[in-house]
Amino acid sequence: MEFSPAIVERLLDRWPVARLATLGPAGPHQVPVVFARTGALLWSPIDGKPKGTTELVRVRHVRANPRVSLLLDHYEEDWRCLWWIGIAGDARVVQPVGALADAEAAAAVAALRAKYPQYVSLPVLREPPTLLRVEPIRVRSWCAGGEAVARASELLEDRP
Amino acid sequence: MEFSPAIVERLLDRWPVARLATLGPAGPHQVPVVFARTGALLWSPIDGKPKGTTELVRVRHVRANPRVSLLLDHYEEDWRCLWWIGIAGDARVVQPVGALADAEAAAAVAALRAKYPQYVSLPVLREPPTLLRVEPIRVRSWCAGGEAVARASELLEDRP
Repeated sequence: MEFSPAIVERLLDRWPVARLATLGPAGPHQVPVVFARTGALLWSPIDGKPKGTTELVRVRHVRANPRVSLLLDHYEEDWRCLWWIGIAGDARVVQPVGALADAEAAAAVAALRAKYPQYVSLPVLREPPTLLRVEPIRVRSWCAGGEAVARASELLEDRP
Repeated sequence: MEFSPAIVERLLDRWPVARLATLGPAGPHQVPVVFARTGALLWSPIDGKPKGTTELVRVRHVRANPRVSLLLDHYEEDWRCLWWIGIAGDARVVQPVGALADAEAAAAVAALRAKYPQYVSLPVLREPPTLLRVEPIRVRSWCAGGEAVARASELLEDRP
């Protein structure tokens, strides 16, 4: 069964991690990402967490082919509680300059800072940060049943 | 930093969930999957857990384009403990017939049943099941540092 639009929206607002798939010359490429939602858009910081050269891969891929996929999901031993949300979207690399004159990008950075208290102590969100801006084209969801809906709500309650 | 080959191997053996990315005509597509390892191969059951029509998407994609990506990763609030393993591979849909005459597929089904006790009570692994056989081409890993290595080992200890 599918999630209601209301649950999808709450999970997009509060679920802490997604998996981003981009398309490279040798096939699909995936990486876990943090992200935040502003209205209809999803944003992921390229410098969102300590890493090696991986950001370069996804940036290069998106510049060559904007179509991406984001996956939010929950796994646990009780398979009645499984769910996922899959987003097909078009991505763009946004490099705000100066004092984030771009209001849209400024809102995205504010949303990321509000969602992840880690940014207070970890100097991994550059000022201004490079962002991946994802415009969802299609959002699908699946959950195993009523237990999964209840579990998703319960997991959200635990989140800040 | 990267994981040692030994940790990668242990995680491929015991980590319970991966995200599979396939390539469709409209871009990358992702779905969470269960999987098991036999030697150099990774196997994911198409009927591995209750779902809707999603299996058809990945099967269709793999038949048209065998290149896939599998991502294993761990997220938690302490970003020093983050890690991921990304596998680029070639996939094939295997539909064993009769009494699993194919020794390779039979070993895969045995590995899946050994890894997931859920199959004892959930009738979601058909007999014989359709399997996705993934031959890894390239395995990369990333972890945030020593804490992430320790955390991965700790998480593995909790697993059956």
